[in-house]
Amino acid sequence: MASFPVTPRTLITRLPKRGEYDRDAIYQILDEGFICHVGFTVDSQPYVIPTAYARVGDALYLHGSPASRMLRNTAQGVSVSVAVTLVDGLVLARSAFHHSINYRSVVVLGTAEVISDEQEKMEALRAFTEHLIPGRWHDVRPPHQLELAATLVLRLPLNEASAKIRTGPPLDDEADYDLPVWAGVLPLRLTSDAPLADPKMRSELEVPKYVTAYSRKK
Amino acid sequence: MASFPVTPRTLITRLPKRGEYDRDAIYQILDEGFICHVGFTVDSQPYVIPTAYARVGDALYLHGSPASRMLRNTAQGVSVSVAVTLVDGLVLARSAFHHSINYRSVVVLGTAEVISDEQEKMEALRAFTEHLIPGRWHDVRPPHQLELAATLVLRLPLNEASAKIRTGPPLDDEADYDLPVWAGVLPLRLTSDAPLADPKMRSELEVPKYVTAYSRKK
Repeated sequence: MASFPVTPRTLITRLPKRGEYDRDAIYQILDEGFICHVGFTVDSQPYVIPTAYARVGDALYLHGSPASRMLRNTAQGVSVSVAVTLVDGLVLARSAFHHSINYRSVVVLGTAEVISDEQEKMEALRAFTEHLIPGRWHDVRPPHQLELAATLVLRLPLNEASAKIRTGPPLDDEADYDLPVWAGVLPLRLTSDAPLADPKMRSELEVPKYVTAYSRKK
Repeated sequence: MASFPVTPRTLITRLPKRGEYDRDAIYQILDEGFICHVGFTVDSQPYVIPTAYARVGDALYLHGSPASRMLRNTAQGVSVSVAVTLVDGLVLARSAFHHSINYRSVVVLGTAEVISDEQEKMEALRAFTEHLIPGRWHDVRPPHQLELAATLVLRLPLNEASAKIRTGPPLDDEADYDLPVWAGVLPLRLTSDAPLADPKMRSELEVPKYVTAYSRKK
């Protein structure tokens, strides 16, 4: 299926031209990001909690300690919403009113299920590491039995999702274009600084290339 | 009040040593960020939507079109949760299990109210612009009456909030420190690239210093 169905719950009602339902476009946003915000409701109180994630095929995986309130609740099969937002720039218009932000965001709605199959669980843990730092899994000590048991892994099928995207320069009111106000876009992106070796390293080891050349862009 | 009260809803149960309730520490995170994720519930379905915000004193302000589903619902005085997350680095451990992310996040719980007082509304609009780009308000055309009327402004009092913070190198299992695996932190931060002038600029204007020297750090 090339596009997500537009449901009353995912229909972009505000600025519909910014809406995007194409699966490839949505997956590209999910693959560039690595922090999502999970929303769930307990006793009528919504909670929004940031966490890491990975996408494998048509599902998002979440993981963590079984003691986590977010995972404990989400594991009970309640409805959740997961948002991933990438910020691309500040949009400076001539009027305060038309200031904006260039961004790409995805909102997923659905119900998560606990992964108990050990092989799928291990595959998901591999995906978390590889999603965060592609190339890393090969180098690290893989999870042993106790660690696997101490990790709750949830699978959220990607059935209902939409993206919202803003790009490009400001859009001012016609009369405002004559104002002597600098207008444009200040591009923003997540960059890495020089890696900091763990002071507890016991031998001199070269910094891996996947660290020095790290980038979220594919 | 120097600290937020620890309530059963904001108590950090998972890794409590990462919990932070100090008001200054929480406000510093809120002031460095500019995108929040708002969670609200409609017909038992939680939604998480990204939006801009500003802090003024002991309140967060949200704004947008009255047509926005997020604002329409939040304006009805329902319980909301607002999360702000800053990502500071990837934490590369020797084991897959101990990989982590350095971050500072704030979660606010509460109920928002619509601002109808015109002066407070104008002050909030000023705060949005100044929170996004300090120094900008002075240069732009301020909102006129129709724009003010077309903007829904919500105030969320900061009564119940907590932060969670992870810093520093990886923490590996003792036996793993002997493994010949590079470990450490890859610092991440939001940086700006060269500003892109609006192609529709009608005169040559210098790029303001608050654009060229833009930084979220205070």
